[in-house]
Amino acid sequence: MYSQRAIDVGLGRRPADKVFGGGKLVNVFTAEVYEAGVAIAGDRIAAIGDVSETIGEDTEVIDATGMHIVPGLIDPHVHTEVTKMSITRFASVVVARGTTSVCTAFDQIAPVRGIDGIRYMLDEAADLPLRIFNPPPSKIPYTIPEGTLGASVGPDDHRIAMQWDEANGIAETTFDFIRAGDSDVIESIGLCEEHKLPVHGHAPFVTGLALGAYANCGARDDHECFSAEETIDKLRNGFYCLLREATMAFNLADCIKAVTEAGLPTRRVSLCSDDTDTSTLMRLGHMDHIVRRAIAEGVDPITAIQMVTINAADALRVDDQVGAVAPGRYADILLVEDLAAFEPSAVYSGGELVASGGELQVTLTPPERPAELLRTFSLTPVEPDDLLFRTDMEDGRVEAISMFIPPEIPLRLRRDVELEIRDGLVLADPSIDVSYVSVLERYNDTGSRSTAFMSGFSLSDGALATSLSPDDENVVCIGANTESMATAINRVIELNGGQVVARGDEVLAELPLPLAGIMSDISPAEMVEAEDRLIAAAGELGCGLANPFMWLIFLPITAIPQYALLDRGFVEQATLSFCSPLVRRV
Amino acid sequence: MYSQRAIDVGLGRRPADKVFGGGKLVNVFTAEVYEAGVAIAGDRIAAIGDVSETIGEDTEVIDATGMHIVPGLIDPHVHTEVTKMSITRFASVVVARGTTSVCTAFDQIAPVRGIDGIRYMLDEAADLPLRIFNPPPSKIPYTIPEGTLGASVGPDDHRIAMQWDEANGIAETTFDFIRAGDSDVIESIGLCEEHKLPVHGHAPFVTGLALGAYANCGARDDHECFSAEETIDKLRNGFYCLLREATMAFNLADCIKAVTEAGLPTRRVSLCSDDTDTSTLMRLGHMDHIVRRAIAEGVDPITAIQMVTINAADALRVDDQVGAVAPGRYADILLVEDLAAFEPSAVYSGGELVASGGELQVTLTPPERPAELLRTFSLTPVEPDDLLFRTDMEDGRVEAISMFIPPEIPLRLRRDVELEIRDGLVLADPSIDVSYVSVLERYNDTGSRSTAFMSGFSLSDGALATSLSPDDENVVCIGANTESMATAINRVIELNGGQVVARGDEVLAELPLPLAGIMSDISPAEMVEAEDRLIAAAGELGCGLANPFMWLIFLPITAIPQYALLDRGFVEQATLSFCSPLVRRV
Repeated sequence: MYSQRAIDVGLGRRPADKVFGGGKLVNVFTAEVYEAGVAIAGDRIAAIGDVSETIGEDTEVIDATGMHIVPGLIDPHVHTEVTKMSITRFASVVVARGTTSVCTAFDQIAPVRGIDGIRYMLDEAADLPLRIFNPPPSKIPYTIPEGTLGASVGPDDHRIAMQWDEANGIAETTFDFIRAGDSDVIESIGLCEEHKLPVHGHAPFVTGLALGAYANCGARDDHECFSAEETIDKLRNGFYCLLREATMAFNLADCIKAVTEAGLPTRRVSLCSDDTDTSTLMRLGHMDHIVRRAIAEGVDPITAIQMVTINAADALRVDDQVGAVAPGRYADILLVEDLAAFEPSAVYSGGELVASGGELQVTLTPPERPAELLRTFSLTPVEPDDLLFRTDMEDGRVEAISMFIPPEIPLRLRRDVELEIRDGLVLADPSIDVSYVSVLERYNDTGSRSTAFMSGFSLSDGALATSLSPDDENVVCIGANTESMATAINRVIELNGGQVVARGDEVLAELPLPLAGIMSDISPAEMVEAEDRLIAAAGELGCGLANPFMWLIFLPITAIPQYALLDRGFVEQATLSFCSPLVRRV
Repeated sequence: MYSQRAIDVGLGRRPADKVFGGGKLVNVFTAEVYEAGVAIAGDRIAAIGDVSETIGEDTEVIDATGMHIVPGLIDPHVHTEVTKMSITRFASVVVARGTTSVCTAFDQIAPVRGIDGIRYMLDEAADLPLRIFNPPPSKIPYTIPEGTLGASVGPDDHRIAMQWDEANGIAETTFDFIRAGDSDVIESIGLCEEHKLPVHGHAPFVTGLALGAYANCGARDDHECFSAEETIDKLRNGFYCLLREATMAFNLADCIKAVTEAGLPTRRVSLCSDDTDTSTLMRLGHMDHIVRRAIAEGVDPITAIQMVTINAADALRVDDQVGAVAPGRYADILLVEDLAAFEPSAVYSGGELVASGGELQVTLTPPERPAELLRTFSLTPVEPDDLLFRTDMEDGRVEAISMFIPPEIPLRLRRDVELEIRDGLVLADPSIDVSYVSVLERYNDTGSRSTAFMSGFSLSDGALATSLSPDDENVVCIGANTESMATAINRVIELNGGQVVARGDEVLAELPLPLAGIMSDISPAEMVEAEDRLIAAAGELGCGLANPFMWLIFLPITAIPQYALLDRGFVEQATLSFCSPLVRRV
């Protein structure tokens, strides 16, 4: 990136604005740690090494003695809306912890407001000390088959977004789209080629010949490795592997064995947070936490730092801008005393001090919200009867598929259960941990909704509802009975978005999410309290999951094996088609 | 790169066209060597690993038993015209030796015919089994100050070229342009940023703060490292270092110590041939030779292969297309029995066998040449007197600067010599190895020409002239006397371009270069014979240089320390300005 100001500093024509002196540079290109100064010109790094000659009368000299000078951290794959925080609030949390760049699709606001919603997020982020690289979703609806949405995203939108400064290709180009030969996605891939922008991937469990097929769509990276074997296969096939350590998906421990045990080179290995709630960010941290996790798994600290700096920048093809403390890059810099402990003491974004001691040093204020983003619901309140599972079958018993969640892996596997048919209804059975689960279209009041069965939440009573629910952001509700479900859903509607726990006609806990029905401007501390209250309330209903909403919200994603639920029905991921959860009479 | 055909093979919907079986894959991503098959679909790699399921009735199975399967080699920085071969002939030589991609500016035809000349070369190359990535020159004239040329290249040309499939940014963005703040070059850098295309660098001996300044122009790589220290500094500053092993510049041995002795990681280290004559290619090889050289210097074979495959592809930002035997990439594949010996036994380009046993297996025929590319001279023959060095000084002696070439490094250093002034002329003095050297504008018959002094060729008589002469492709001539020089120059004019050795009025040896005055369609074997004849003839004149024309042709490049000669005068590189070679009377 051309910077006359930085050139002039390097050529001795003007002094540096700031100089870091006395510290040890962590050079991610050479994997060296050595004493070096860093000269700053505006928002750029002008020079590294012996920069004493760049110090003028007005140069601010920052004493980095005893500190390591480390590049600002990059999260190459994160869905910021899943924290339920607005991007301003999200930045306030992660910047304080050393993250200075994220690659994010804003694909949760996209089903609500389309490309305009994404642009709205980018405009809000423009003045934040957090650099955003934006690959809009490869296609909205993401799901196959499609759900009912408030907005779509396709090639015509990509044509616009690829002109933006934040453009970074397209996100979540799922294997399913390629397998299905989706013509819109193929067209958007062509636009990426034309604009030299990356095609970001999504291919859980895809290996071998299918992985070869997938690579031939042009996907550059993948954040869906579940094992060392899968990671090794994807690295061999040329993918950048963004190993995930999310709130619910702890893939790092297994996948990192491709490095720590198989000993593979790490240049195409990065780390990402993907889907994380605010409690995780506040209690454990963001990329700083994931760096510590990698070190704890046996990765050398310098290598771990490379993974979330230069490797991430290479994966995104933005290594000319970020990912290194080197001239020509933005002056996104951390001071870190102990590399192994990895607690950033100071964070500079674009040359400005923005956090120290883990505390933000700048005030980030969310903007006034326009009315059209605070009223995104068009859904008539429901009656309990609306949510029942109806059948033509006579009274008796039926073998049915109840989705269930295996420990420590966010899939929806098949559990075959026997349920009672009574009066044209198939009844959930909390005594054997089978709840109802419903998805309701919430944008157009079409009345499109579906019900299926779910296990793993062990609800004895009550219901949980959420309108943050990738990929469609429709209303998802699980309940032991439809009375509680109607209470929870109707409260979400009243709030114009939110998460609610209810029992009977009583709301036990709630979190309003008024911004697009998925986000809030409350403080991060308030968000953590709200997340705690919701979990505690779910616990009162017998729910044994540590974080039930983080399981619930993803139910409509059809790109995750084996089943999903859309407003239009129950989906089998293997065939990407609607099916009945009822197997056969018994 | 999206390929439906390759996707269909991976998904089992159609058989592979070809399958390599029984060989060991050199995986440049993981630095592993392991038994694996490779399935080909059209010109793409469809899958690697166990590909037995992709074999159908019509699949050609290639037995690679005992062979290593290696990616086709990439030369990330080469001036093909300097071989004096047309691109068709150049391809026939290098493809047989395992090179399947080159990044080349075609910056030698550019001063002759501008962007149209570059497009002409690309069109000729379009059907060759050699993939071309083309960054047009950052600016023509390259030199500061400017020489007199047949055509120029600037931002308006880059706007056109950046739309081409072969577009790869801009080449040779010299430190001098940045230091001088050249507004055209700055504009073209902006176009690269807009089009996400690389800015290729050129910064010999630039280190420290100046290197920081240079990095802030956005230059991604550099091929001008002369020592391990310079290489280390450039790697630390984030540059891709393309270590050079050219016909005259043997930088590899020193620079590679950054790896073999300093132990730096190699991900941003590549190798290039830059300026090479045909004899070097035919006798030693191209990138295969440079790989062997790296191995001889102590680089592990896998690492050396990475340098000229994936590392080069990363440097050029074309790792989605080439640089690995991995799905999604072009099927540019070598079979190599012994990795350390590195003699490619077979070469596949885009899935087709194009060479085996070092011999081309396809016929590459140069096209008919248009008249306007065969008549690019407009220069009236000269008289010996035209080439003398004139002065206002009275008879006596003068201290003068004679350029001289240090051993093994293609610079023009300063040698202070005493010369005689007689009758308004400063006389060369073969007895102390001081020849005349002249450059004559050859496009517009302006009569623009200059003379200076040169040592190192130890000519006792005669002259050498060439119209291949980066960066201007004007006529450059060195001679012990101006009679011989006029003979040589006038024969070059008659030939419409070429290289000539003359003594008195006799032509001792000549090589016509009719294509744009710089290239020929003669066979590579004939070219080697011609190069040998020219060198032998120069030897008859007392010239002790092993390869005098390879020293002579680069005299007009002002981006190389310390002096250059343009048709408009003698240039001091430190100040980028014209100066007199005369220092003072003695």
